Amino acid sequence: MKIRKAKKSDFKDVLGLINELAVFEKLPLPDAAARKRLKDDAFGKKPLFNILVAETKKGIAGYAFYFFTYSSFRAKKTLYLEDIFITENIRRQGVGKLFFKELLKISKKEKCGRMEWCVLDWNTNAINFYDGHGAEPLKEWIYYRMNFS
Amino acid sequence: MKIRKAKKSDFKDVLGLINELAVFEKLPLPDAAARKRLKDDAFGKKPLFNILVAETKKGIAGYAFYFFTYSSFRAKKTLYLEDIFITENIRRQGVGKLFFKELLKISKKEKCGRMEWCVLDWNTNAINFYDGHGAEPLKEWIYYRMNFS
Repeated sequence: MKIRKAKKSDFKDVLGLINELAVFEKLPLPDAAARKRLKDDAFGKKPLFNILVAETKKGIAGYAFYFFTYSSFRAKKTLYLEDIFITENIRRQGVGKLFFKELLKISKKEKCGRMEWCVLDWNTNAINFYDGHGAEPLKEWIYYRMNFS
Repeated sequence: MKIRKAKKSDFKDVLGLINELAVFEKLPLPDAAARKRLKDDAFGKKPLFNILVAETKKGIAGYAFYFFTYSSFRAKKTLYLEDIFITENIRRQGVGKLFFKELLKISKKEKCGRMEWCVLDWNTNAINFYDGHGAEPLKEWIYYRMNFS
């Protein structure tokens, strides 16, 4: 098992896991146009996000999407973890810890002041994992969104 | 009054407003090292965030910091509004609306699927403004953070 940067040739496997995550999060699966954009946005000339994968003997078994945001308060970059997913049959075997370790290493290398992410409020396994890593839910702040069609 | 991209020469004025925002948000002011990083990160070779300013006859009276994140669910960029601030004596005169109009224009140009930001839960004026623009607070999701020293 190792955590490494994704290659373009991994994308098909990653896509299978993206679908698995969408089912888990009770969200619709990406359509053909969205799948194409994801591939282009990850592996184009100016990637919009980065992908780490967990490679096992049986293939790609998990992924993390991340990019860098910025905190004006810290005056430093933030590593934002957009998605992290590990396929069901290898959960609770420390893969999440390996991803986290790698993400913390990247945060340090990039001189980030923070690492941030969102979690669904019913995903207690993930919440317990994050709490165990010394992360904290944001208080006082409300997150707002406008969706464009 | 006009909304335009900030120039490096605006930074001193922007910094004055950043301090005013920190006082308003009851947060500590940036120290000398943070002020230097902010300037470099906004106006260096690879800017980490973008600044819009509101220019009035009396000078810079407001600013917005934004950058682009990514939504894997939408498979599109998101415009993330990191800060928006308008100095006290010109509030309630439509400057916020002008900033929002410009940010929506940029979102459209950049083919963003969303615009997002955070607001302090006691800042009812801002919340009413956002609600009036059809924005919605995120439900079900908990925002997590790890702060690095």
